[in-house]
Amino acid sequence: MKIPVGILGATGMVGQNYIGLLNEHPWFEVRFVAASPRSAGKKYKEAVAGRWQLAESCADAVSGLTVHDANDVSAALAAHDRGQCAFVFSALETGKDQIRALEESYAKAGVPVVSNASAHRSTPDVPMLIAEVNPHHADVIPFQQRNHGFKKGFIAVKPNCSIQSYMTPFYALINTGFEIRRAIVSTMQAASGAGYPGVASLDLIDNIVPFINGEEEKSELEPLKILGTVENGVIKPADAPIIAAHCNRVSVSDGHTACVSIEFGAKKPSIAEIKHIWTNFTALPQELNLPFAPMHPIIIQEEDDRPQPRKDRDADKAMAVTVGRIRPCPVFDVRFVGLSHNTVRGAAGGGILNAELLKAKGFLD
Amino acid sequence: MKIPVGILGATGMVGQNYIGLLNEHPWFEVRFVAASPRSAGKKYKEAVAGRWQLAESCADAVSGLTVHDANDVSAALAAHDRGQCAFVFSALETGKDQIRALEESYAKAGVPVVSNASAHRSTPDVPMLIAEVNPHHADVIPFQQRNHGFKKGFIAVKPNCSIQSYMTPFYALINTGFEIRRAIVSTMQAASGAGYPGVASLDLIDNIVPFINGEEEKSELEPLKILGTVENGVIKPADAPIIAAHCNRVSVSDGHTACVSIEFGAKKPSIAEIKHIWTNFTALPQELNLPFAPMHPIIIQEEDDRPQPRKDRDADKAMAVTVGRIRPCPVFDVRFVGLSHNTVRGAAGGGILNAELLKAKGFLD
Amino acid sequence: MKIPVGILGATGMVGQNYIGLLNEHPWFEVRFVAASPRSAGKKYKEAVAGRWQLAESCADAVSGLTVHDANDVSAALAAHDRGQCAFVFSALETGKDQIRALEESYAKAGVPVVSNASAHRSTPDVPMLIAEVNPHHADVIPFQQRNHGFKKGFIAVKPNCSIQSYMTPFYALINTGFEIRRAIVSTMQAASGAGYPGVASLDLIDNIVPFINGEEEKSELEPLKILGTVENGVIKPADAPIIAAHCNRVSVSDGHTACVSIEFGAKKPSIAEIKHIWTNFTALPQELNLPFAPMHPIIIQEEDDRPQPRKDRDADKAMAVTVGRIRPCPVFDVRFVGLSHNTVRGAAGGGILNAELLKAKGFLD
Amino acid sequence: MKIPVGILGATGMVGQNYIGLLNEHPWFEVRFVAASPRSAGKKYKEAVAGRWQLAESCADAVSGLTVHDANDVSAALAAHDRGQCAFVFSALETGKDQIRALEESYAKAGVPVVSNASAHRSTPDVPMLIAEVNPHHADVIPFQQRNHGFKKGFIAVKPNCSIQSYMTPFYALINTGFEIRRAIVSTMQAASGAGYPGVASLDLIDNIVPFINGEEEKSELEPLKILGTVENGVIKPADAPIIAAHCNRVSVSDGHTACVSIEFGAKKPSIAEIKHIWTNFTALPQELNLPFAPMHPIIIQEEDDRPQPRKDRDADKAMAVTVGRIRPCPVFDVRFVGLSHNTVRGAAGGGILNAELLKAKGFLD
Repeated sequence: MKIPVGILGATGMVGQNYIGLLNEHPWFEVRFVAASPRSAGKKYKEAVAGRWQLAESCADAVSGLTVHDANDVSAALAAHDRGQCAFVFSALETGKDQIRALEESYAKAGVPVVSNASAHRSTPDVPMLIAEVNPHHADVIPFQQRNHGFKKGFIAVKPNCSIQSYMTPFYALINTGFEIRRAIVSTMQAASGAGYPGVASLDLIDNIVPFINGEEEKSELEPLKILGTVENGVIKPADAPIIAAHCNRVSVSDGHTACVSIEFGAKKPSIAEIKHIWTNFTALPQELNLPFAPMHPIIIQEEDDRPQPRKDRDADKAMAVTVGRIRPCPVFDVRFVGLSHNTVRGAAGGGILNAELLKAKGFLD
Repeated sequence: MKIPVGILGATGMVGQNYIGLLNEHPWFEVRFVAASPRSAGKKYKEAVAGRWQLAESCADAVSGLTVHDANDVSAALAAHDRGQCAFVFSALETGKDQIRALEESYAKAGVPVVSNASAHRSTPDVPMLIAEVNPHHADVIPFQQRNHGFKKGFIAVKPNCSIQSYMTPFYALINTGFEIRRAIVSTMQAASGAGYPGVASLDLIDNIVPFINGEEEKSELEPLKILGTVENGVIKPADAPIIAAHCNRVSVSDGHTACVSIEFGAKKPSIAEIKHIWTNFTALPQELNLPFAPMHPIIIQEEDDRPQPRKDRDADKAMAVTVGRIRPCPVFDVRFVGLSHNTVRGAAGGGILNAELLKAKGFLD
Repeated sequence: MKIPVGILGATGMVGQNYIGLLNEHPWFEVRFVAASPRSAGKKYKEAVAGRWQLAESCADAVSGLTVHDANDVSAALAAHDRGQCAFVFSALETGKDQIRALEESYAKAGVPVVSNASAHRSTPDVPMLIAEVNPHHADVIPFQQRNHGFKKGFIAVKPNCSIQSYMTPFYALINTGFEIRRAIVSTMQAASGAGYPGVASLDLIDNIVPFINGEEEKSELEPLKILGTVENGVIKPADAPIIAAHCNRVSVSDGHTACVSIEFGAKKPSIAEIKHIWTNFTALPQELNLPFAPMHPIIIQEEDDRPQPRKDRDADKAMAVTVGRIRPCPVFDVRFVGLSHNTVRGAAGGGILNAELLKAKGFLD
Repeated sequence: MKIPVGILGATGMVGQNYIGLLNEHPWFEVRFVAASPRSAGKKYKEAVAGRWQLAESCADAVSGLTVHDANDVSAALAAHDRGQCAFVFSALETGKDQIRALEESYAKAGVPVVSNASAHRSTPDVPMLIAEVNPHHADVIPFQQRNHGFKKGFIAVKPNCSIQSYMTPFYALINTGFEIRRAIVSTMQAASGAGYPGVASLDLIDNIVPFINGEEEKSELEPLKILGTVENGVIKPADAPIIAAHCNRVSVSDGHTACVSIEFGAKKPSIAEIKHIWTNFTALPQELNLPFAPMHPIIIQEEDDRPQPRKDRDADKAMAVTVGRIRPCPVFDVRFVGLSHNTVRGAAGGGILNAELLKAKGFLD
């Protein structure tokens, strides 16, 4: 008996990715889909006709589901009460204020929300989880429930896809005792990060765009919350590392690459130590053997010219971060290139892993 | 009466660019071409059949020239003596040691060499010129001639294409009194930088390659020589800025983009001052009104998402650097994006401007 | 004293191309711009902020024009009466029915319309002009005026960009006496053909899309009208060639390529004859020395692997068709590859050439 | 106990694909690898260092194999006699004459050759197999052995990758009784078809190349041999369909697309009949349940804009042909778009399926 789940924003690109990745998931089963009023009432298959982006066709079980209006919380609640929607994945893509309010409405109605949206990322009592990095931030959920008067519902979010290529490597070093004071990061991000239709092809043919609206701020600030401490029921952001991000859009379908220079605190690991730490890094998802957990969260590629998006993005079910070119930095201490799959690890796959973690921790019972 | 010039390595991609750009040059006229023994004896048109990379056809005057063996200095010397080759542009693409020796042979034979090759970039008495930045480095030429027993010949080189997007902007600030201590640079470089055939299409379709052999070292060290001082007939490299470069190859035909974070010394310009300095920067080439000098060596694009290779590489005859996104850096002081055309400003066009400068300074009389 | 012209749909991609191409036009000068109500009232520069697609900045004279509502014919009429809008180029991009009615309103108000839109392409008394092919179709204009009660206004259109790569070559052969019975054409069309934002980058990264809505029908039928005869004040389409078109979208910014197999009637030219006909083809625009007329409407590239979009699209001010690989066809008689610049020759540039033709013929006095 | 196999040309791109695809093959196991003298003597892992093109790392069992000189047949023979090389897959990429002779040497030595190379495609007693189309052509093998004095050795080849997208669909119709008289085919072929490094990235960035050396001839002639009859121990090519091919290289990594117009004989199927025939088509490989046989050799995509390389190339283990846009042709009878994965179905995967077929038929015992 699998746990029935719902998808809010099911017809968008992230929503489609959830549906694709949850096909044959050992724990979860999509039984409820909701999207904009425009899609409401249609069969899912009709609602995505001409917009389906995945190579694999949509599973029959989902194709036949009726799409509900995501703004109508009562539909999800009814499904919840019928045992067809234990919780929802939020892949909503409308305005931030609207999403913030809507996710709260679901939580208030008793339907937990595992979200990919950015609306609640800076809310202090909402955990922003990378399952290998800050699973203990889930501890704020009971406080969140109390603060808002949620009974069984709650909101948990995941961070922006752009930070995934360096966040877990940073954490693995920090967790071993090597403070990272500062970092300068330059990303080359895939078109799929902007959804569909997203970036115009005229912007990426023989071209790059050295700007992604709001992305640098997220890339600089979200790591501080993720590395923060839980105090009095809220997450207090860390003070370091101070990050400067340069975010670029390049002609790649999937896979965000980051060139990173880092400055350690007084205690500085050798290149060999760094490689050892990253190669051997595992965390709670691996220990719990969660279905979407990569066996090795960080994979080191020793060839000079790796990682590369087309060759490395799919490593370990597209859930691992691949790191290469680990070498001394003439300005800071060490530099490297990190890569992760933005629509799997950085979006729907990361959300599913978060849900697995929350289930394992008892929040989705 | 134009000055007759020769091209060494005339059949390669940089050589072709020289020929294309020198078409209708007001001062220079290609009258001598040399390449590998394989091409020697053929008409230039035949030698490049199936390898011609430019959109425009080769000018008739050059098409009919007989290609000489670049290893045979006597051919150039004979042309020199006949008044058909006042000096040569070196676009040689063979091994570094071989090029180093060969360029010296031409200089020794009395044929000045204005080179695009990297072989002599670190030779202390060979000037590595960016015409707007260090034209005074040409002062080492008489010492070079004395050291090597060159009579009228000499060697002058230009730096690597990768530094062009930030070197002139750096210099404009330094020259105004703002020391730059450190910089972290991440480049996204065009395929044409690797020549033809160069990078395999399989490496750049839906992909980037985060490595270019030897490029990061050049991007870090060459600026120090360019900013160096002439002492006792040699160029003494500067101590700063210390640069860390991350060099990437992306799916762009022409135009290298650099994301740059800089740390100033004690005296720090405001963003407004930086813009003012860059907008108003001109130097000797502009003063001398050299044919290939851009009217504005640095162009600021105020739109959020510029500069972009396809839109900005051709600015001011493809000889200007376009800069945008000038904004504070949370880690260092300021960050920006720079872009320049790698095969024009960064290669053949830069070489031609250097020759114009050397002519204006009386070294090519 | 230049002729003042207006642009309807001035803020869209085709509209921008008109403005870019008309900069420094010897006859015409943009003095009036109109677009959707959303842009109305703004300065043109503001209306296109963040949407400007050309490498060159917008000319100052146009930047400062106030954008009018294109639906409000009275604005153009007032400009017309003030001597600031002798006629309009229509680059409207809204619905076909709406454009049809609107272009008629302008014509009725006395403002001639030289259109890029498809709305009136099948209207029998509206000429669909390729200046080198069917300039005599302008003869229907007086009939059109009489039929609709237009006084000085009228509508003339240009055909779809997809046919430009083979239509002029077809005509040159037909005009020499070689009937073309049938042709099978496969196009590889540039992204810019769909406007901006147009095709999503995810559709063209490591991909092609073998479908463009409505394009095959246009590619098959429009040639028949262009080759038609003027009878009783309307254009009667030709019966041949019967064309089958396969239209594909590929990862190219500008330049449509067509692979073409043709079957002649009883009289069949040799390959040599075809090359001779195409090389020597000129027509009325060349005879009249119109500013936008290419010197050679058809350019033959003899190299095996040409024409190629990046190398050949800009030939002769981007107004020529480049043809290559002319060889026997095992199924039909002859096959070849044709290429033309879709946003210049195939859109705004073709429209300007039509206006020049109509001016030379006295229709715009 | 798996059958031990060898790979000739194991370090090239097709060779690497064989090794990748044979990893965990249920019947075959790579135990012998040979390549050029330059690689001979090295461990396979070292020989492909810096040249490995697959996303997945090379299997350990193969990494450790010593590479033999492919020109030295005795090495393979020794392995054959030791029970480590029952037969070889030929992925040789040197000159055609050299490959022809070398493959014969292996056959003569008693080592069967299942080849991807083009050298023996037109040899009348060498079967050119598409497992679903002409498995009975294997009947010429005993004649080939007798003609050349081969004892157990023989040569079987597969056709060029470019025909795979239309050959099986053609056969399915012909086999049902619908003669195809003529066809005009325009292909858009992936970069991987040219091997690695293959096509220069400068040729495919913002560009297409409308020419592939020798490809059109193969695309036109090979189908006739495949559809031929076995008479007197040799394959007599069919007379029809007469095919005209236009072959283009486009910016796609994997997956060849073909736009096809076909003319039937007197008996013409309806669109509905064609769809029915293709949807239900299966052949001997499906009947024998061969490991690499796709469940459905031809998959129909009903969406307007499919098949697309990135979305459809991997269908059914990348061994199926995906067909779409089946519609009437105004010039011939019917037109459609076909797509197949050129390095899997069109190269190594097709070779493996051929070996499976030959094994099932008893030729590899």
